[in-house]
This record gives sequence, structure tokens and C-alpha cells, in this order.
Amino acid sequence: MSAGALTGPVEIVGTGLIGTSIALACRRAGIEVLLTDAAPDHVRTASGLGAGRPRQEGDVAQLVVVAVPPDALGAAVTDALDAAGPETVVTDVGSVKAAPLAAVAAHPAVSRYVGSHPMAGTEHSGPLTASAALFEGRPWAVTPGPDATPAASRVVEALVRVCGATPVRLSPTEHDRAVARTSHVPHLMAALVAGTLAGAVPDHLALSGTGVRDVTCVAGGDPRLYSQIIGGNAGAVADLLVEVRDRLDLVLEAVAAGDRAGLESLLAYGQAGTRAIPGKHGAAPQPMEAVRVAVPDHPGELARLFADAGASGVNIEDVRIDHDPGRPVGLVELDVVAVRAEQLRVALESNGWATHR
Amino acid sequence: MSAGALTGPVEIVGTGLIGTSIALACRRAGIEVLLTDAAPDHVRTASGLGAGRPRQEGDVAQLVVVAVPPDALGAAVTDALDAAGPETVVTDVGSVKAAPLAAVAAHPAVSRYVGSHPMAGTEHSGPLTASAALFEGRPWAVTPGPDATPAASRVVEALVRVCGATPVRLSPTEHDRAVARTSHVPHLMAALVAGTLAGAVPDHLALSGTGVRDVTCVAGGDPRLYSQIIGGNAGAVADLLVEVRDRLDLVLEAVAAGDRAGLESLLAYGQAGTRAIPGKHGAAPQPMEAVRVAVPDHPGELARLFADAGASGVNIEDVRIDHDPGRPVGLVELDVVAVRAEQLRVALESNGWATHR
Repeated sequence: MSAGALTGPVEIVGTGLIGTSIALACRRAGIEVLLTDAAPDHVRTASGLGAGRPRQEGDVAQLVVVAVPPDALGAAVTDALDAAGPETVVTDVGSVKAAPLAAVAAHPAVSRYVGSHPMAGTEHSGPLTASAALFEGRPWAVTPGPDATPAASRVVEALVRVCGATPVRLSPTEHDRAVARTSHVPHLMAALVAGTLAGAVPDHLALSGTGVRDVTCVAGGDPRLYSQIIGGNAGAVADLLVEVRDRLDLVLEAVAAGDRAGLESLLAYGQAGTRAIPGKHGAAPQPMEAVRVAVPDHPGELARLFADAGASGVNIEDVRIDHDPGRPVGLVELDVVAVRAEQLRVALESNGWATHR
Repeated sequence: MSAGALTGPVEIVGTGLIGTSIALACRRAGIEVLLTDAAPDHVRTASGLGAGRPRQEGDVAQLVVVAVPPDALGAAVTDALDAAGPETVVTDVGSVKAAPLAAVAAHPAVSRYVGSHPMAGTEHSGPLTASAALFEGRPWAVTPGPDATPAASRVVEALVRVCGATPVRLSPTEHDRAVARTSHVPHLMAALVAGTLAGAVPDHLALSGTGVRDVTCVAGGDPRLYSQIIGGNAGAVADLLVEVRDRLDLVLEAVAAGDRAGLESLLAYGQAGTRAIPGKHGAAPQPMEAVRVAVPDHPGELARLFADAGASGVNIEDVRIDHDPGRPVGLVELDVVAVRAEQLRVALESNGWATHR
């Protein structure tokens, strides 16, 4: 993989899930990586995973990536600019972008700071769950402020490409409005739905299917982290939440009044919204189809499935796994471009997999 | 598979996805299946899939399964009771349970009606997507009214088991309150989130990650069908939706006021709710055991350990790492199901790892 404008070393400040995953992707591309973290244990763990070596006195990075919790971000970006060499570019991977820029707006080296935000993560945290593949095919916002140099943005975009992600250039303010819609408000709504389950009768929860699991999944994330993220984007979130509350009132009215047509049109508006989400790679959405495969719940079976699917030559765009209560067999859905679905089914069946048609 | 109290024939009224899948599961168990549908094409398709034969004049079923759209349910259950033999049990698989019972409450044969509701389905419809495995391991509510005979409930529960599902006995009213919580309100909230995407700037939607896709996925379902389902459960849905609206107001207040602690506690309540959903396999948790391994503190050693653990065929459920200050070796704890711990230890030792017993 060519690193383009990124020659290294890359310094990672904060070796949690995101920081260590970026480090692993850089190492995969042969780029030298320097690791720092307030917790020395995390640096040792990340280093043990092959993510790079501890930063030492005198090391000078081409790019510093600040990957610390949201409330520590402004200070950590400032520290990085203070300590950086005269050519060093500094980025961060925080979930909001106007606040860290404001923290360094008056810094003499602000022209070498370009914020960014990879749209990836898992419900886990810490270096042990890191992966060089975490960002592959994901959007990654790159948000230069008004003083940033074009060269600094190019270095950050080169990092995005080394990680296999797709750069999406937005202003910091535009970014924050966008993630209120694509991330923060969905998270809050998922938490509200999940909250209705907290006090429910266990017999009622026994009826939980895949729908409620999907809707609430993201609400399993760390409340402390998400209160920092969402609290750091309060203005944009509140604006959108007011719209949602007003529309919820319309839904409530329609349900209470037995207004089926009104309810249907509100549901149709939502259905249209699900179709507005772009294809994973930012291209115009192609019609997709799910190939469903029964997979025994034994170690190695999923790996064997992915190996066979990979060998079929059909690109897997998305995967969902449905291990529902009490099944000795999981159902795996492989999303592929519809015109290639049959090719994948035939390939899998010839390897002995049971597909559901 | 033993059919228990279910000897057949089973008559399926409505050969869509759900009806045809039930028919296929009955045929798999060797039970005779009779098919009817307002659309003769659907009967032919289902029959061609091996789901049974068209019902003929004079056929008498042991059990009639009504699987028609929600708004047609009351009339179809009434028709089935009218036409049934003197011993025939009638069930339906509709998504709400108080309304169809009310439709036949005064019927002379009401004692032989027991409603039910399988918690399964896909985003597809029609017999072609049917599968005998659709219900395997899923919960399936069985909801006898006050006049139903125990024998009728036993026949319906036998059908549930033939389909590989787990019967969950609830009263019709309890059922409707349960699905308001586990299905209808989550669906409406997903539709509200999806609605915010409908009018959004495409550049902003480019930042959509897996979270918003998961939250909104279920809102892709047919608005007409879901307005019937949710409209048929208006009372229970409205009650719960008022609670959600009140809690949304609290979220909005906390965000607007910059009240991080309040926001965190609302998110923590949601996180607790995600944990209330019954576990992956619905079973009681199995006893776990930690396998402790000494890992040299060198780059790449942890990666090698995970590769060897993966090759052992034992599922790793959790990982903790303990770098003792000043020791050249870290201690890694791999949590596995207790009965497999020894297998993992032996596999790791044969690869040269030192385990602590």
C-alpha cells in the first residue's frame, strides 16, 4: 500500500481502540509509529500487539494523531502543537470538531492542525480490540479550519487512505451538524428505546426479536463517553432533537386518534429516510441483496464462511449476524450487489453451506 | 422430530412468508398440510415449494393457522371457526392479540380459538422467501383467552415446537403490552430517526456509520403493514409513547442546559436496558474460567498469542491483561467456558506458552 504524502513517523497520543487501530494500519503500510498514553500499560499492550514502539525523547513525528477522550481533547491538541517539531502536522480523531479547533484557534501553529473523525468503532474499548481493518471502506471526515494549510490537509488525508478509509472534507461546523443527525440523535433515540426495556417484566422481554436488538444496540456504549461526545455538540443536537420531538407528537396524535393514514404517511417518511443513507463506499446506492447462510455456532465456522465467500470473487458489502435465543445455528446475512447474489449463493452451496432462498 | 399433540392435518390460511414457512416446518415433521389463499398463485407457489397441497372440499383439519394481513385477521379467524370441524382448533399468527380475540369473543366455538404470534420474519414477504428454519430458536407467544380449553392451547404449543420455536404463554392483553415495548415503539422511534435523514444534505449523510444504519434498519419495512400492526395496538403503544416523549423532554433539557451528569444518567439508564434483553442463546449463563498466560513484553507477542488461541478451536469470550510494573512479562487472562479451559491450556502449552494453573 502506498502511503502517498505520509512518510512517518506517525505519533499516536492515546492507545485506545481507535489510536491503536490507526497505529496498526500505519505499521501494515510500513510506516514507523511512536506510541504515547497517560497509562504506560496501554502503550505496552499496544506495542505487544505490533502497533509500534514507545515514543522516546528526541523523536520527531511527521504527523501526530491525538486519540484521547472528548473532554481531554482541546488540551491534548494544544500540548501536541506545543511539543511538535516545526513541520509536524497535528490531527485528532474526536467525535466533534468545532470545539477542539476553538481550543487552538489562537495557537501560533494552528495552520498545522487539521481535525478529523473516522466513522468507525465498536462497542468495545481499549487496545486489545484494535484492528488494522477497523476503518476499511468507512467514511472519515477531514475538517480543516480557516487557517489550515493545504499541505497539512493532504497529510491527514493520506493517513485516512493508509487506513483504507474514504476522506470526506467538511468544515468543522458542517461536520458537527452532520454527526448530530447521523450519530448523536440516533444514539439518544436508541437510548430512549432501550430505557423502556430497563424496567420491563422479563416475560415481556422474552418476546424481543432482532428489530429491538438492532434499534438499541448502539445504546450499549459507555454513557460517560457518549455524554462527553453529545454534550460537546449540544447546539446542533438540541436543534435536531426539537424537530424529532415535534414529529413524535404527530405520531402520538395519529396513534391516539386511530388515524391510520396519518400513521402510514409518517412511517413512509421514515422508510424514505432509510433509503437516503448512501452505499457504504459513498457511491450512489446500487440495489443490494442479502444472501442468508446458516452457520453452526462453532469456533472457526464464521472464518471458514468468510474465506469461502472471499474466494467466490463477490464483494461483501455488509454482514449481519443473527444469533437468536437458543439457536445452535446462527444466521449470517451477506449483503452484496443484487446482480452478484446468485453467484455467491452457488459458490457457497458448492462448498456445502446451506443458504436460505 | 416428534409432533406431540399435533397429528394433522394442519390448514394454512394465507400462504405468505409466515404461513408458508409454518407449512414447510410441518411438512418437515411429516404432518399433512392443506393450503388456502385469496390468491390462487400463492397456493401454487407454496405447493411447488413442497409446503403442502391445496385444501379440498371435505378436508377437515386438526388445526387451522390463519396467517393473513392484520386488518383482515378478525374476519378470517371468524370464517375459520365457522367453517371448522367440531374438534378443529384455530390459531392465528397476527402481531396483535386482543383485537382478533375480541372479534370472536361471542362465537360459539371461541373455546377452540387460541391466538399466537411468532417473533420472526424478514424484510421480505411472499412464499418464495419462506423457510422451514424461519422460527428456529425464536420466541413464539401463545395467548389463550379466558374461554380457551387447555387442549386447544396444547395443540398450538405443539405447532410452535414443530417449528423449532419456544412457546411463551401470555394473556392477549399482556402480549399486546409486551410487543408495544419490544416491537411497535422501537419501530416508531426508528422511523422518526430515519425521517431526519430524508431531507438531509447528501454530504452530511456521507458520514453515516453502522450505528445509524442499525437504529433505522427496521423502519425500512412496509409502511402500510406497520400502520395496520401499530394501529391495531393503539392503546398500549400510546401509553408507552407518552412515557418516551416525557423522557425525551428530559434529554432535551439536559442537552440544552449542558447538564453532563443528567445526560450521562439518562444514557446509563438506556445502557441498562440493552442488558435487560435476554442473552444471545436465551440460556442461563455458563460457568466461565480464566486461562492465565505469561506473555513476553515484546512487540507482536500478543498478536501471536491470539492467533494460537484462535487455532485452538476454543471460543474466547473476554480478555484482560495485567502488565505488572517492572516485570518483563505480562499476564493475559483469556476467559472461556469452564469445560473448555483445559483444552485451551494444552493447546497453548504445545505452542510454547507458559500458562499459570
